[in-house]
Amino acid sequence: MNTEEALRDFLFNGHLFYVPHVSLDCAIFGYHERQLKLLLIKPKVVENWCLPGGYIKRTETLVEAANRNVKERTGIDNLFLQQFKTFGDPDRSKASQFDEEKWFKAVGVRIDRTNWLIDQTISVGFYAITDFSRTSPKADVFTVNCAWFDIDNLPKLDFDHDEMVREALHTMRVQLYHYPIGYNLLPEKFTLAEIHALYETLLGKKLDASNFPKKLIALGLLERLNEKRSIGPHRAPHLYRFNKERYDEALGEGLVLS
Amino acid sequence: MNTEEALRDFLFNGHLFYVPHVSLDCAIFGYHERQLKLLLIKPKVVENWCLPGGYIKRTETLVEAANRNVKERTGIDNLFLQQFKTFGDPDRSKASQFDEEKWFKAVGVRIDRTNWLIDQTISVGFYAITDFSRTSPKADVFTVNCAWFDIDNLPKLDFDHDEMVREALHTMRVQLYHYPIGYNLLPEKFTLAEIHALYETLLGKKLDASNFPKKLIALGLLERLNEKRSIGPHRAPHLYRFNKERYDEALGEGLVLS
Repeated sequence: MNTEEALRDFLFNGHLFYVPHVSLDCAIFGYHERQLKLLLIKPKVVENWCLPGGYIKRTETLVEAANRNVKERTGIDNLFLQQFKTFGDPDRSKASQFDEEKWFKAVGVRIDRTNWLIDQTISVGFYAITDFSRTSPKADVFTVNCAWFDIDNLPKLDFDHDEMVREALHTMRVQLYHYPIGYNLLPEKFTLAEIHALYETLLGKKLDASNFPKKLIALGLLERLNEKRSIGPHRAPHLYRFNKERYDEALGEGLVLS
Repeated sequence: MNTEEALRDFLFNGHLFYVPHVSLDCAIFGYHERQLKLLLIKPKVVENWCLPGGYIKRTETLVEAANRNVKERTGIDNLFLQQFKTFGDPDRSKASQFDEEKWFKAVGVRIDRTNWLIDQTISVGFYAITDFSRTSPKADVFTVNCAWFDIDNLPKLDFDHDEMVREALHTMRVQLYHYPIGYNLLPEKFTLAEIHALYETLLGKKLDASNFPKKLIALGLLERLNEKRSIGPHRAPHLYRFNKERYDEALGEGLVLS
């Protein structure tokens, strides 16, 4: 949507190509070396930072729409986005706060209160985790900025996005033991110290270093390899890897813990 | 919606009071004495059985809408409905299969393809578990029947409801270890044999009777009481109860398993 013509078509005819009343928002967590961050955008038409999101084309699945929106808003592609909850409290839509002049100033096109974008919207929440050091967030035509924020130092978010982040974080933490979430955040072969740091950071709490991996190993989700990595004189910890097949199997059984 | 006037108002002006393009569907599981069932309705306007559901009033939260719809469709009230996934594949809406004559015959009012009910819809899935022996399902004005079906002997469902049931069952089974789902399905104080039967039935698989409760007890989720129940000569098993506070705590920590 980089020409004014495309923008006008979206604003005035968008309800024909997109499903009206339904949006989606994406909580994208970023991990790197004991740091957990969240990707936020600052749209031109709202006051505060918020989660990247957008609308669903009438020909797309929800997850396809989530990926397209994230790519358009932030420049980041190929995330494994996972649905976590849909948000529909009646007061989450603030049609009453629509400011015609502000819209005009922001995007250069005038819309009024009857526009399809202004009516009540229910939003589907997705989350993803990626290595933030390998991304280069970029703002698009609707946004003035796009950046990573420390999870412990987030600004006040717009709409109901504070609640979305809390719920996304909760779901990610529960699912950490059911899905191989660490998969793309660690090298293929990693040390116990590396997965320990990852889990502590994602869970936001200390884990007993010797007890923590036992359950994962007992369940066959984590495999000890006959390989070591030399990290210094007399220091060569064993390497481990995720057993993806066992994860899929465990998921198929409906649970990992049993 | 028991008068023709109310029905006409819903059909022709519903988009003013309900959020168009968004519906919800509810997978209501029923447990009683080692049996697991699913509540289905047979609407007048579709071919096959399907999940009870409906639309969201513009003034309702999603869960309020789920409860109202279940009550209207089935007569069952006060369920603890839990959101599990939102369904939005473009081919789930079958506007092309809309049959004007069938609608007219079913509800006595004529609508056409431009009606708000016929356009593409994204549906929010909820699930609940109740004791089916304490319910009395009743059909409403839109449905010819409403009944419990054995989970292992379901009819082919309409729309994408087969997929919804699979996903609801999967979520319920994963959450069985994170939420006190058995809460309303067992007496306040129960024997290990009773909770074992409940968990085996809900999970659809055999569980080792002596190992199964150990984790729940170790985590403090299940408490052994200083009480026994006499069930025959020389047979008086210990009674247990759920520790609801510990469940809430564990949920607050983001996970039960750690």
